[in-house]
This record gives sequence, structure tokens and C-alpha cells, in this order.
Amino acid sequence: MKAQLISIGNELLIGDTINTNASWMGQFLNELGIEVTRVHTISDEKDLIKITVQKSMEESDLVITTGGLGPTHDDITKTCIAELFNAKLVKDESVDNYVRDLFKSRNIPFSESNSWQAMVPGNCEVLFNKAGTAPGMWFHENDCYLAVLPGVPYEMKYLMKRRVASKLREVWESVGYIHTEYLKIAGIGESTLSDQVLGDLTSFLNEHVSLAFLPSFGQVTLRVTGKGETKEQATNRSQKLVDFIKLKAGPFIYGSSKETTLSEAVGEILKSKNLTIATAESCTGGLIATQITDIPGSSEYMLGGIVSYANEVKVNQLGVKKEDLEQVGAVSKEVALQMAKGVSEKLGSNVGISTTGVAGPGGGTKEKPVGTVWIGIFGLGQHFAVKAFFTKDRIANRERTSVVALEIIRRLLSGMDELPYALKKEFA
Amino acid sequence: MKAQLISIGNELLIGDTINTNASWMGQFLNELGIEVTRVHTISDEKDLIKITVQKSMEESDLVITTGGLGPTHDDITKTCIAELFNAKLVKDESVDNYVRDLFKSRNIPFSESNSWQAMVPGNCEVLFNKAGTAPGMWFHENDCYLAVLPGVPYEMKYLMKRRVASKLREVWESVGYIHTEYLKIAGIGESTLSDQVLGDLTSFLNEHVSLAFLPSFGQVTLRVTGKGETKEQATNRSQKLVDFIKLKAGPFIYGSSKETTLSEAVGEILKSKNLTIATAESCTGGLIATQITDIPGSSEYMLGGIVSYANEVKVNQLGVKKEDLEQVGAVSKEVALQMAKGVSEKLGSNVGISTTGVAGPGGGTKEKPVGTVWIGIFGLGQHFAVKAFFTKDRIANRERTSVVALEIIRRLLSGMDELPYALKKEFA
Repeated sequence: MKAQLISIGNELLIGDTINTNASWMGQFLNELGIEVTRVHTISDEKDLIKITVQKSMEESDLVITTGGLGPTHDDITKTCIAELFNAKLVKDESVDNYVRDLFKSRNIPFSESNSWQAMVPGNCEVLFNKAGTAPGMWFHENDCYLAVLPGVPYEMKYLMKRRVASKLREVWESVGYIHTEYLKIAGIGESTLSDQVLGDLTSFLNEHVSLAFLPSFGQVTLRVTGKGETKEQATNRSQKLVDFIKLKAGPFIYGSSKETTLSEAVGEILKSKNLTIATAESCTGGLIATQITDIPGSSEYMLGGIVSYANEVKVNQLGVKKEDLEQVGAVSKEVALQMAKGVSEKLGSNVGISTTGVAGPGGGTKEKPVGTVWIGIFGLGQHFAVKAFFTKDRIANRERTSVVALEIIRRLLSGMDELPYALKKEFA
Repeated sequence: MKAQLISIGNELLIGDTINTNASWMGQFLNELGIEVTRVHTISDEKDLIKITVQKSMEESDLVITTGGLGPTHDDITKTCIAELFNAKLVKDESVDNYVRDLFKSRNIPFSESNSWQAMVPGNCEVLFNKAGTAPGMWFHENDCYLAVLPGVPYEMKYLMKRRVASKLREVWESVGYIHTEYLKIAGIGESTLSDQVLGDLTSFLNEHVSLAFLPSFGQVTLRVTGKGETKEQATNRSQKLVDFIKLKAGPFIYGSSKETTLSEAVGEILKSKNLTIATAESCTGGLIATQITDIPGSSEYMLGGIVSYANEVKVNQLGVKKEDLEQVGAVSKEVALQMAKGVSEKLGSNVGISTTGVAGPGGGTKEKPVGTVWIGIFGLGQHFAVKAFFTKDRIANRERTSVVALEIIRRLLSGMDELPYALKKEFA
């Protein structure tokens, strides 16, 4: 099955809005086994809309338009489609009632322009839109299917998932169900994960089951997609690969949803074990504390932290020894160990974590080049530091340091011996 | 002048890559006075590329393609264009030498596939690409201009700015120069800025000069664009509006480049005045410290901070009075004042800044609903707190609190009396 997408709206052509709808729909349809061959981005111009829809319908099995369904005068998609099919616009009572009720419940006066939302071409089937006021429309003309959707991404996605997907399954046997799972992993390189932890997965991968590695700073998200003729079949098919990955990489997986963050995972364990944490940050400058407190309810386990950017703060607030700062410098095992212990004791937390490093771009030396970082841990009967080496980029260094620090804590709390990136514990 | 863009690449259709090139080019051409009427996103398929280029050239004055210029077998754009014009591919010696030198300088062995980069259709003019190995190409056939560019955004932008813009000026008198300036403003609402500070700007705005308000959390960026027949004319035209905005809103402007951040602006002033800062954060949880230390060289003025999430940390580390926590609560003027003074005195900084608030989603009460925030300031002979009220959203609350806190400091250091959002100073 071949599809073409038509994105309608001047804002897309003058660059005010980036066309994210097209890529989202491309991925969605691709996973359903429908190939998108072209995307047309066009202005709100009557003749252009009509001719583009007509031509695309001649060339493919499915056409989906987005945009131009609002209540104002520059929203003309619906009128164009009606003219193209020589269809009259008729009022859909259920949409009309729904929109009126919506306005009533929000205490907004209902104006005639909103009544326009319920007018649809007589030859369409309404795709009821509970995410907004503009209904989607479904047509079957000249051996081609046409879906007309609003351009608001949230509404478009709602209609694609809840309405269009089931219409497609209705009309094409081969269009089945998809089931996607995400497994989030930190502190292990993509190639190590693939070659040494997961091993050969080819026996799991086929036309029904696919796996994608999505890397970011110090993290890899695995996306497993299963396809099937039923929802159950799609789930079962992806489940086999998910189960195998969990078997092989279980302890490395910190989350099973796309949105879960590492600091959230750490927080969940701290909460369940009734433990508290405190941070002592130099090179990350508050980033780890920010990520921990990004999570609602983090006050249950986060006591606080000390950002010790200046050496005097390390000495006076965290009890770092002046002579160590002078002899081995701030970026050292000794200082990382003292910072972690210092903050844990001072704030009275079960766990203390510290960072000290050369974030860059300046401050590097031959012995300690930009990217050199020490992370210290104190608590749960442990007191150690690890040395990591990252990149030349300041932002990347800070992000990676934060990921590795949080992942060390997560593994420690989960009883894992192996440290992220096979880093070595160093002791006082 | 009307233009069409053709984005070539399967990765755009299956949703792996979002087509940001098209919106960037749309804006760039629009500012040059060229209207983009259509964007075609198509796969790497020979016939489709040829017919789309041909048809677009028939319909418009300018066509620009991006993508498919790499050295591998699936990069076929160049071959398609040569076939379309019945042109032979010939070696461009200057490109060949450039690519060979580039490989030599990087110590990478030169392979024959790289030599392919220097082959171009005989009827084109090479647009020399110093940002990569694939040259751009410029054609004039059948009364239409065609630019063929690589898809890597960085290379495309280089060629658009350095090569295509001047070709367009060469062939069309009406295509002039554009000059864009950004003015960054924080702590003042978009409508207040527009209505009360700037006033009526219509006398400055015309076909040559435009102004855009780009809002984000607690901030507004003004984009002033001037167009002219010469670079000087474009600059002069925008300059008049920029000067007027500076006259009216000068003290509110913290930066004059797109990339400047508020924490960078604060840092610059602290550095120039030889002053130091320290942070005491509760609801922002380290975000302000992170933003300050995001800036390279911030160790010159940032001593550090204390994230006092738990009340005990407020008492023990910042000297907040236990009885105030019990009587008026952590989210109060008293606690904000004590936190700011505490961190400044403890860390020995010239300025201390504090935040305490209900970030949400939980923790709100009738008296202190989610979004209630106190910000405290100590130093430079001042000691006050302000109460702000933001939204129901945790992330937005934290971001806005950080912006307002930094903007208070910036205004204070700049000798301004007025606080962001006309907030009122409250004293002990």
C-alpha cells in the first residue's frame, strides 16, 4: 500500500512551524506496513489544495491531509474537498452537540463560527475527535481512501491512533496492529550492549518484529516493535524479544516507558527503600540536584545538595582538606571522596554523591585534560570514587557526568557490582 | 518570485528525520522576498526525482533540492539532474583538489568514492562548499534557476548564505540583502512590553522592516529584520527600529545576540564589577546554579550554592529559624530572606539569591496554591524578598522562578529600580 501526505498551511512554508506531523505520520504508517512515497507541503490556496489532493489520490492507495480545519476564514480544506467531490456540506448533529456541550462545560459563549465545525461533506464518514473541535473525515472515492485531519499535532495523533488505524485495518487485511515497547538503559555503550550483552538477536527479528537503538548522552533506549493481525499477536510477538532482552540485560534496564528518566528511577528505589540522598557538585554545578528534583514528590528522598564551585566552599562546607586541594588538586580521587562523605554527613543523608571535573572548554592540563571527571560515593557501607573521561564539550561533559553518577547510585541500590562503562572503584 | 523546495531522502518519509531544512529555507527565502509555494518531500527514486524537479521548474522561478549528494550508491540526485538536462558528468578540478587536500590534512586515506564528489553535470556552475565534501550546483535552464544542495543542515545553510543568496541577487534585482538583529528581554510580559514600553511602532514597520515577538518562559526575544538593496541599506533600515527599541526598552534588554542567555548576561556584569554570587534553592532545586555554571568561566564569579530541599537543611546549613518554618512555613517571606542572607554569609559572596515555593503538582494549599514562589535577595546593601505567582505546571514554575530570580539580580546590578513584572520588594 502506498500513501501520500499533504500538509496544508502557510505557516509551514514561511518557516514559522516545523512540519513534525509528517515525520510522525511517516513512522506510524510505516510501522503499519504502509509506505509513504511523498509528502506535499502546500499553502492554504484553493486550487492548489484541490489539484494536489486529486493528483495524490490518482497516484496512491491512501492520502492523508492535515491542517486547514479551524473555524476561521483561512481554513479552507473542508470546502476544497467538498468541491472536489461535488458534495454538499451538511451538518453532523453529533459533532454539533459535542462542540456545544464542550463550550458550555467551559463556560465559553458559543459563536456561529464554532457551528461551522459540525459541517462536513455529505460523502464522508466522520472521524469523531474527542481531542478538539474539528472532526476528522474519511472518504472512499475512485479506489482511494482519503483522511482529512486537523493540523494540531495532539489532535492529529489522537485521530491517527484511535480512528484512522482502525479504518485502515477495516479496509485492508494486511494492515494489522502494532505494539511498541521502550527499554531504557544507561552507562553502557551501544556496541557493548549489542555485542557483549544482548548478543545475536537475528533469530528474533523478522518482518513482524523490529528493534531500534536510540542513543543519547550516556544512554541507549531500545525500541521494540511488534506487528500482528490482532493486538494480542502484535504484543505477543514483541514480548518474545522484550523478554529475551530483559533476560540478557535485565539489571541494566532502568525503565520500561519512553518517558521514564534515570533520576525518576533512582528516586523510586530510594523511596521504596526509605533512603535519602544528598549531592555535592562541582563540575555539574547543580545539574544532578536539578534532575533529582525535577521529579514530583522528590522531597520524600532528596534532602538537598551543595554546589561547591569555589575551593573555599569545598573546604568550608564539605570538609575537603586544604592540603589535598593544594597537593592533588580539586579534580582528584581524594576530593571526590571527601565531598561525597562531607555532604552525606552534613545533611544527614543515607547516600552522598559528588562530582568534580574539568568540564571545559578551559581549565584542562596535560595530566587532567578537559573531560576528566571524578565521581564520589558515600553511604550504604561504601566509600569509593571512580574516574571517567568524557569529551571536549562542556554541555556533553556535564550531562554524561550526571548520567553516570545517577546510574552508579541506581546500580548500588539494586545490588549490582558492575559499575557503568566498567569503571573501577578506587578507595581512599 | 516563486520557489519550490524538493527534499530528497527516504529517512524523511519514514520519520527518522524531521525536515527542519525546509522550514529554515522557507524563512530564509521569505526574508529575501521569495515566496515558497510548495515543498515536496520524496524518496531516493530516480523517476520521481526527475519528474518532480522538471515539474517544479515548469511551475516556478526557482527550485532548490536538498539531499542525495553523498558518496554512496543511494545518493542519486546528481545523476538524475544530469540525465534530466542531457548533460555529461565532468570532473571539477578545484573540488577534486579541495577534497583530496581535506583528506590529507585529516590523515584519512582517499578512496575512489570520494573522487565521485568532484563529478558535476557539465551545464552547472559549482557552488563551492567549504563546509563539506559535496559541492552545491547552480543551473539556469528553461527560464528557471535550480540549486542542488547537500541535505546536511550545516552544509545547506552554509551554501544558502554564502553562495545561493548572492546568485539570487545576481539574477534578480529585487532580491536584496537582509539583516537580522535579536534583542532579548526578561521579566516583562509580551503585551506590557508592546503596549506600555514600546508603544506604537507602525511608523517603523513597512515592506523593508519587520518585527517579531518570540516568547518563551518569562522571556521575550524581539527579532528585527531589515531588507535592502545593499547590505548597508538593510542594516541601516533595521537599525532605526533597533535604536528606537533600545531607546524605549534599553534597560530591559539583557542581550543582543540570539544565543545570549540570561545567566550569561548576569555573569558578565558580575565579572565586570568583580562581584561573586551564591544560590540557596528550594523549589528550583539547583536549576539556577546549573544555569549559572552552564557558562564557561563562571567559576570567576560563582562560588556555589546550597540546595535546601529538606527543612533541616534550611535550618542547619542556611540558618533559617525553626520557629519561622513552624509558624509561617517554608514558602514565606521570612524563609526566603533568611536563605538569601544565610548562603551569602556562609559562602562569603557579595550577592545571595534564594527561592522557595510550591512547584507542584502536589503540596498546594488554599493560602499557598501551586505556583506560589518567594525569591530572596541579599547583598549590595539590599535585603528583600518578592512574592510571585506562576502556573500549575512544575517544569514551567521552576523555569520561570529561575528567570525572575536572575533578572532581579541583573536589574539590581544595573542600578534599575523596577523589578520584573512590577513585583514589589518586601522587607523583614
